[in-house]
Amino acid sequence: MRWSRLYVPTLRQDPADADAVSHRLLLRAGYVRQLMAGHYTLLPLAVRVRTKIVDIIREEMSRIGAQEFSLPAMHPAEIWQKTGRWDVMGDEMFRLRDRKGADIALGMTHEEIFTTLALELRSYRDLPQMWYQFQTKFRDEPRPKSGLIRVREFTMKDAYSFDVDATGLDTAFDAQQAAYVRIFERLGIPAVAVQASSGSMGGSASVEFMCPSTAGEDLIVRCPSCGYAANVEKATSRVEAAADEAGPDAPEQFPTPGVRTIADLADGFGAPADRQIKTLVYLLDDELTLVLMRGDHGLVEQKLLDATGARSVRPAHPEEIREALGALPGSLGAVGVSGPRIVADEALRGRRNMFTGANVDEVHLRGVDVSRDIAVGSWADLREVVAGEPCANCGTGLEVLRTIEVGHIFKLGYKYSEALDLTVLGADGTRVTPIMGSYGIGVERALAAAVETHHDDAGIVWPVSIAPFAVAVVVVGKDEETVAAAERLYAELQAAGVDVILDDRAERPGVKFADVELIGIPFRVTVGSRGVKAGALELTHRATRETESVPLDAVSARVRELVNQ
Amino acid sequence: MRWSRLYVPTLRQDPADADAVSHRLLLRAGYVRQLMAGHYTLLPLAVRVRTKIVDIIREEMSRIGAQEFSLPAMHPAEIWQKTGRWDVMGDEMFRLRDRKGADIALGMTHEEIFTTLALELRSYRDLPQMWYQFQTKFRDEPRPKSGLIRVREFTMKDAYSFDVDATGLDTAFDAQQAAYVRIFERLGIPAVAVQASSGSMGGSASVEFMCPSTAGEDLIVRCPSCGYAANVEKATSRVEAAADEAGPDAPEQFPTPGVRTIADLADGFGAPADRQIKTLVYLLDDELTLVLMRGDHGLVEQKLLDATGARSVRPAHPEEIREALGALPGSLGAVGVSGPRIVADEALRGRRNMFTGANVDEVHLRGVDVSRDIAVGSWADLREVVAGEPCANCGTGLEVLRTIEVGHIFKLGYKYSEALDLTVLGADGTRVTPIMGSYGIGVERALAAAVETHHDDAGIVWPVSIAPFAVAVVVVGKDEETVAAAERLYAELQAAGVDVILDDRAERPGVKFADVELIGIPFRVTVGSRGVKAGALELTHRATRETESVPLDAVSARVRELVNQ
Repeated sequence: MRWSRLYVPTLRQDPADADAVSHRLLLRAGYVRQLMAGHYTLLPLAVRVRTKIVDIIREEMSRIGAQEFSLPAMHPAEIWQKTGRWDVMGDEMFRLRDRKGADIALGMTHEEIFTTLALELRSYRDLPQMWYQFQTKFRDEPRPKSGLIRVREFTMKDAYSFDVDATGLDTAFDAQQAAYVRIFERLGIPAVAVQASSGSMGGSASVEFMCPSTAGEDLIVRCPSCGYAANVEKATSRVEAAADEAGPDAPEQFPTPGVRTIADLADGFGAPADRQIKTLVYLLDDELTLVLMRGDHGLVEQKLLDATGARSVRPAHPEEIREALGALPGSLGAVGVSGPRIVADEALRGRRNMFTGANVDEVHLRGVDVSRDIAVGSWADLREVVAGEPCANCGTGLEVLRTIEVGHIFKLGYKYSEALDLTVLGADGTRVTPIMGSYGIGVERALAAAVETHHDDAGIVWPVSIAPFAVAVVVVGKDEETVAAAERLYAELQAAGVDVILDDRAERPGVKFADVELIGIPFRVTVGSRGVKAGALELTHRATRETESVPLDAVSARVRELVNQ
Repeated sequence: MRWSRLYVPTLRQDPADADAVSHRLLLRAGYVRQLMAGHYTLLPLAVRVRTKIVDIIREEMSRIGAQEFSLPAMHPAEIWQKTGRWDVMGDEMFRLRDRKGADIALGMTHEEIFTTLALELRSYRDLPQMWYQFQTKFRDEPRPKSGLIRVREFTMKDAYSFDVDATGLDTAFDAQQAAYVRIFERLGIPAVAVQASSGSMGGSASVEFMCPSTAGEDLIVRCPSCGYAANVEKATSRVEAAADEAGPDAPEQFPTPGVRTIADLADGFGAPADRQIKTLVYLLDDELTLVLMRGDHGLVEQKLLDATGARSVRPAHPEEIREALGALPGSLGAVGVSGPRIVADEALRGRRNMFTGANVDEVHLRGVDVSRDIAVGSWADLREVVAGEPCANCGTGLEVLRTIEVGHIFKLGYKYSEALDLTVLGADGTRVTPIMGSYGIGVERALAAAVETHHDDAGIVWPVSIAPFAVAVVVVGKDEETVAAAERLYAELQAAGVDVILDDRAERPGVKFADVELIGIPFRVTVGSRGVKAGALELTHRATRETESVPLDAVSARVRELVNQ
């Protein structure tokens, strides 16, 4: 490709409003443009990178025997209604009516539709099946942000497995997990595989692949010693057993004027945060619920959903709280409360002589014995792990990292096959319900994650595997000999199958070099008259910004060597 | 690829409800499944074919310097409102509201969005540009039918050119046209390039690429002698000049009891159809309009739209007709009518002594002189060409063919650049509005058109260029020697880069042979114990169903020779 015939609208200035590094660089280097919030155009350079990412994923899917399909993006509502997800997906699902008034969903994911296709499978002999596609997904994100990282429309590689039993699912899941490890390695994305919540997808287990980045929206917990890793939505840590002194025979009220927060009570009334019971009020599927946490612990809402099986969660409004408990946040408690459901975090189990609100504004209780004084309906791990807490496996201090989710794989179990009446004839002649898995990678998000991982002050530093071009041959000088040498090298590299761009633009060398660095081409060969006359060219490595001198007739071989490393 | 690991759900019976040959064969041979009317899943075989079609199109686009983009499928309403097409597209555009209540269109085509991207172009030096993408288009077709031929969701290659002047557009248009000719040739689609109406796309000229097929919905007119070809929506032919005898000084009424049709008047009252004036009543953008045709001529509604510039057309309801003219269809005429607009077909120009309705039920007029008696507002070619009529160029009898539209290219002119305020700095320092073209191919429709063109009683007969596999190695027999020979040949062909499938299924030879024919693989090598022992294998050509015997060690070379032909 000749640069003069390529549309690469690089920007001199950093664009306003680009929060993430990848967003800023992809705009500035002429890879993407925003059409509206959450919807991006890929310009030619980005199309090249995406194609390479897709090819790598496709190779790894083929390697594990997955077969490529292509399903519609528009789905009849009925199929989503059968699994209940027409309602569960809420505002995140784009919906429309066609000219005949039929309800239609834009596909956010394809469990339902692939399962419908699988209804044609007849027998256990037709299993296992592993099916996948590259396809546009539509999700009405409440807050699209960070360029390609959180969007409303994106390409997904989504795969689905159908097996005759759980052992088969384990095999499929392990094959996908191994493929994901290879894929992210080949893409140059240092993804960490972590245990995760399955969320609205359902199922028994899931693993996320998380790329560390300050632009991420997910926190993961990782043990530097034993390898434990989990999304903060799922992660646990060891909590020191408390040795509470015995308290009074019954809780005692005391006035706490001006107290609104855990810190207020700790500072003014000698009640350390870890001896307080924090009372949060939520609506879980519209049912008012008290959630009890230790004063110094944070709640993870996803854990609350997973523990209770609720589909939706929101904090109660102040008026709802006052109506239920008779007080406002700051003085709430669960002592003596018998109406609403009470869910307590495991860290409160067995605790005595604690502080909590009295459900009278500016009045608290002390000497609370959780098991004696509070009618806890259920116990669960609801607590957010904090960096430095001991690993539950090995006791080492845990790390907490900000990450981008680039892949997520699920053991779905029977949720979709049962809801959609998928059965096959079993080996014993009875009907068997296949067990399913699903496996997704966000393609443009992976592209952005690669940029988040590989950049410097001058621009993007693509891994060779997915760079839009492996090498740029930059002509500096207009004399015939120089131009001819550049053209010869360009032709030679093309003939050798190297993905090469010839920078033949009538620009100053400084502009050309800066553009090559900005768009992130791994290797640059500079063809100037001095080098041509001297019989040696400069070859610059983008990653290190180091330059080596290579004899003119050895450049092609050297470039091929570097590219194939 | 091993057939045992490929999902190819062939059907023993012809599926019900499959009208077109391609629809029937693609279902039966396990290429596609319908999710809902107009929405199809491509199964692995079809994905393979589509990939090959896309690769061919991409090669030809690259060859003419077009650059690949990827634009969003969801568009903000505002951009479509600026060009007026938010309204023009009517029910054919899928629309929805997002969670914030914003109006969104699902892209039917991308003139508006590509033009918006082009707003970043600064100068005439940035032109020409030729941009394209492969992307899913959504169109709410009133009557999806014929499998992949008329659907609501499909992949389109759409290209857009931006040039500084009309000469530049001509160059771009010619390059695309030449690329289309090469593409359809490589796809094995005998497409005829025809002049066409630009319809809602606007612009000064357009050419359609039409594949002859009984499943088509478009009629084209072609001259077997001079090469003239046009869509019937645009086609003309020579009309013999009429030699009317002089009539009376004024039209004369006569009663015509029971007359409702042209034929009634011809049969019962000696008024040959070509001496009658047929009066049709239409609403053009809600304006009632009389359309006058010769009695034996058919009206082309698209010609009426193109001639009047109207956006919408529908026949008037009987009550609207009676209110306007005082009579019902069967006795309508335009003599003395002064209210509604009157548009007349060119074939009526200068005619005298004609018959028409009197706007009194069961009363007609004779002796009508069109220029004397009817206040024609405008003249236009509105007539549908009929097979056998003389070519307007050379007089040869014209053919009329039923066809599938597989491509359509447009000289758009300034419609979109003006509506969206696209200008660049011109060479003389003034602002210049770029002139545009757009160029589309429906990818899955091309796939179906190839099947419509290439099939026989046993199934599909793919051209080698787009076949899912070029050759099938079919194992018949289970003995070690046979299986080993087949595996060796399979490996050898794979190593030679031949797209080969090994039919390793535990099926009877007859089933295997029938499946290879049904799915349409161009070449079949049969590996059985007798052939292996004799040192020669049977190589069967799908197209001719002829078999040649090839020495065992020459099979790979012979297959490569055939595939590369």
